[in-house]
This record gives sequence, C-alpha cells and structure tokens, in this order.
Amino acid sequence: MENQALLEAMKATSVAVERVLDKFIKIPDTPEGRVFEAMRYSLYSGGKRLRSLLVLASAELFGVEREHALRVASALECVHVYSLIHDDLPAMDDDDVRRGKPSLHIAFDEATAILAGDALLTLAFEILADEDTHPDPYVRTKLISALAKASGGHGMVGGQMIDLSAEDHALDQQAVFRLQKMKTGALISFAVEAGAIMARAGKPLYASLQGYARDLGLAFQIADDLLDVEGDADEVGKAVGKDAEAGKVTIVGMLGVERARRQAQMLSEQAIEHLSEFDDKAAILRAIAHFAINRRM
Amino acid sequence: MENQALLEAMKATSVAVERVLDKFIKIPDTPEGRVFEAMRYSLYSGGKRLRSLLVLASAELFGVEREHALRVASALECVHVYSLIHDDLPAMDDDDVRRGKPSLHIAFDEATAILAGDALLTLAFEILADEDTHPDPYVRTKLISALAKASGGHGMVGGQMIDLSAEDHALDQQAVFRLQKMKTGALISFAVEAGAIMARAGKPLYASLQGYARDLGLAFQIADDLLDVEGDADEVGKAVGKDAEAGKVTIVGMLGVERARRQAQMLSEQAIEHLSEFDDKAAILRAIAHFAINRRM
Repeated sequence: MENQALLEAMKATSVAVERVLDKFIKIPDTPEGRVFEAMRYSLYSGGKRLRSLLVLASAELFGVEREHALRVASALECVHVYSLIHDDLPAMDDDDVRRGKPSLHIAFDEATAILAGDALLTLAFEILADEDTHPDPYVRTKLISALAKASGGHGMVGGQMIDLSAEDHALDQQAVFRLQKMKTGALISFAVEAGAIMARAGKPLYASLQGYARDLGLAFQIADDLLDVEGDADEVGKAVGKDAEAGKVTIVGMLGVERARRQAQMLSEQAIEHLSEFDDKAAILRAIAHFAINRRM
Repeated sequence: MENQALLEAMKATSVAVERVLDKFIKIPDTPEGRVFEAMRYSLYSGGKRLRSLLVLASAELFGVEREHALRVASALECVHVYSLIHDDLPAMDDDDVRRGKPSLHIAFDEATAILAGDALLTLAFEILADEDTHPDPYVRTKLISALAKASGGHGMVGGQMIDLSAEDHALDQQAVFRLQKMKTGALISFAVEAGAIMARAGKPLYASLQGYARDLGLAFQIADDLLDVEGDADEVGKAVGKDAEAGKVTIVGMLGVERARRQAQMLSEQAIEHLSEFDDKAAILRAIAHFAINRRM
C-alpha cells in the first residue's frame, strides 16, 4: 500500500469516526452545553486518527463489520483525546498548543478542560456498552475490560505518572521502554487487538498481533521523540524541543538521534514480520508500520 | 430501623467495600505506585459510604447476591471519590480539606490528583466489566451503560459544569433543582436502581425506585447545603460556609433555612411513600431517607 493511499484511508477513517461521535456528542441548549463544546473542540481538531485506523485494520483481518469497528474506534479516540487534554494541563505537561491550535484549557479554561476530559473518558465506556457497538454483550464486556486495563493505573495513566516523576529521577533504558509501553503502547495494543476481541479469535492470532502492536508502539514513540528533536513545529502541530526543555527522559535522548532512528527502523521491520501469517488483509497494518517511522506529523 | 443500626450498617458496608477495593488497588513496587497510593488515600478516608449502602439495600430488595452488590458498590465509590478529587482541584472548587484531611492535591500534588481521579474512573468500569461482578454479561453492560450515563456530560459532569458557570450567572429555582439532580442525584439514582438492573427487574418496580431516588437525592442535597450553613466544620469534615463565600447558588440560599428544612422533610417523606409496594425488605431504604435529613456529617 502506497503512503498516499494510507493518508487517504486516514482521512476516510476520520470522517467516519466523526460521524459516529456526532451522534453521541450533540451540544444541548442548556448550561452544561459548554462541556460538550469543549469535547468537540478537542475531538474534531484533525488528529491522524492512527488508533482508529488500527482498529479498522484489525477488524478487517477478522472480517468484523465496519460499523462495529467504527464504534470501537470512536470510543478509543475519546480515551486518546481525553488523555491529551489532561496531559496538556498546567499541572501536568503545561502545553499551550495542540494540533496547531490552542490547547483546550487555553481555548476554554482549566476547569472545563478537566471536565471535558472526564466526560470523554466516561463516554468511551458508554459507547462500548451500547448494543449497536456489538450484538454480543460478552464481547462488549471484553472490549470494556481491555480498554479500561490499557487506560488505567497499570496502563496509560501509570505511564504518565512515571513520566511526571521521571522529571526528577533519572530512568535507565529498560525503565524508559517500560514507561513508553504503558503511556502510548497500551492504547495502541488495544487498537490492534480490538478486531480479535470482536471476532472472538483464538489465542495464537492474539500473540502475533500483540507482537506487532508492541514493536509498532515503540517505533511510533521513537519517531515522535525524533520529531520533537528535529521536526518543524508547524508540521508537527505542537511545540517542538519540549522534551529536552522539560528534562524529560526519552529514548532519543538516551540513544542519540542516529541510533534511535536505526532502532525505530528495526522495530518497524520486526512489527511487519509478526504479520507473516496474515495475507493481503494485513496490508494496512504493514503500511502503518512504514508510516509510523516516516512521517512528519 | 434505628439510627444506630443504620450507622452500624454503614460501617459494615465500608469494611466490605474496602475489602473488594483492596483486590483491585494494590500498590505496585514500581514508579507508577504513587498513583495507587493516591487512589487509596482518597478512597480510604472514611466517607459515609451512603451510595454503597444504597446499592446493597437495593440489591437486597431483589434478592441479589451480596458479593455482586459489593462489586457494584465498589465501582460506584470509585466514581464518587474521583469526582470529589477533581472537584477539589484549584481550577474547580479549590477545597483544601476533605473528610477532615488535606485534599488529595494538597497531600500529594495536582498532577497526581488529576491522574488518581482518572484512574479511579477507569477502574470503576474495569470492575463492572469483570465476570465476578455478575455472571450475565448483558447485566454487566447495563450496569456500565447506566453508570456512564449517570456520570458523564448529561449527568454528574454536566452538573458540575453548570455549578461552575453558576458562579457567574444567577440560576432560578428550577435550574438549581436540575443542577442538583445532575450533580448528585444521578449517582444516587444509579445506586438505587442497581439492584433492579442486577435482578433484571421489570419496569414498574424501576419507576418506584426512580421516584424514591429522585426525592432522596434532593433531600440529601438540601441537608448538605444546610450543613454548609449551620454545620460544625469538625463534624462535617470539610470547610463550612464555602457556598456563600463562593457565591454559589444553593436551594438553601434560595428558599432560606426554614423553608429549605421543611422542603427536605417533605421530600424525605415522599421518598418513603414511593416504597409502599415493598415490604420489610425496604427497611434500610426507609432508614436512609430519615438519616439523609437528620445527620451532622
């Protein structure tokens, strides 16, 4: 699959996911409307929708209905966007710009940003519990359980906790890899496994997907760190050079730019190897592994 | 049921709920352990566990297993405590004391408080999705859906959004009742309906419980506002006189102390009337309706 085709798939995914979210996030004409405006401000600000595309690609592998996959992708975007909103808060990473626009707490205010994040996280589980997301309630509970575990104290939130403490304590390489696996890897793994959960696929296929997700997640994160060092703020859509300024421990800071780039390349190739048992249906997943390390945003 | 017996039931509920939560919130010996310490600090700080007791009482009405009810109560406490943590933040209500102890962001720090709240909200859904919470996955998805709706932008979070905007705009009586219904009523309603959901009870019984929950929730809130005006800070466990100071619109501020007290009394009696079709099994629910307006904490 060509890079151009992948970008088009991302665009189409974005449109489809926003159509689903539209149903759940209407702005009521009552005083609480402000929190829904805030949710939309952050959700509809043109992210790559990479996690959504991973859900769709994983669903396609198992012949899962696209409408079901879009529901799961929408829930995942809610969790991803909530995490960006809370991470940007002054008490956390204190970022004023996100995706080329003022961060939510700048555009609205801190209290609204906290509440919009809370409401998005809550909405994710409401969407997954909904009958239209999957006809089998057992599958819905499995999706909820997997997303909660990936997002909570042992997953994404735990990773952010380590990241914040890391500004005070030096971490060794193993600890940085663990941090990234929790902070960004856990949600990527959920996205990749979602198709298997929806199809109630067996264990062996899970293992391959988990391997792909683990390597992709790390490759993606190293590429992100490289963009922070070398990227153009306008293209990246947020301030660059922030990690070094904040004294954050990153894989790039640890390995240096050249070794980090080779590491990302190797991880991307390894990710693709995990897909060997899947045929052409895994084309998008392979293209994403290429894209992850060859992007400028 | 005597007041003393109710206080003992609350104590027993608290112990049982904490036993369940212990299983889910172990402090790992890794850098993210801090967020689990913070979750425990707030969860185990001696609240009344009123919402938990309502879940247990509602479960008893329908002959639901106590172990299942305790799981649901634990999830609900996670949501309740997360909301207190986030509401206390400087950008929100800026409260330094909660339940007689420093608020979480004072005892730890703001970033940890935001993350601990996020992790508790996430954990609530993880608990509800777990097979041991209820054997029927359909019931689990119904519980998740109901809790998410009660907690999100159309429920508790929306209520807090209105409350924050109300510091700028005056609200009329109807708007204040609506605010309270969303901010505190929604979770109380979930607690009262949880037993019916777990038992897959029919619509007519739901309606009675909804009536009880609506009146109880308002009576409880008015009693809370009265404590803020007249209560003793040591007994209440948080600063009093905060509402007036912050210029918050409350039912007591609107009706005056005497009329508000009569209103709470009337609502409590009305709540009990909704229980007429239940026999002695509703004794705890009746006792709670008395307690709600005759408490000093």
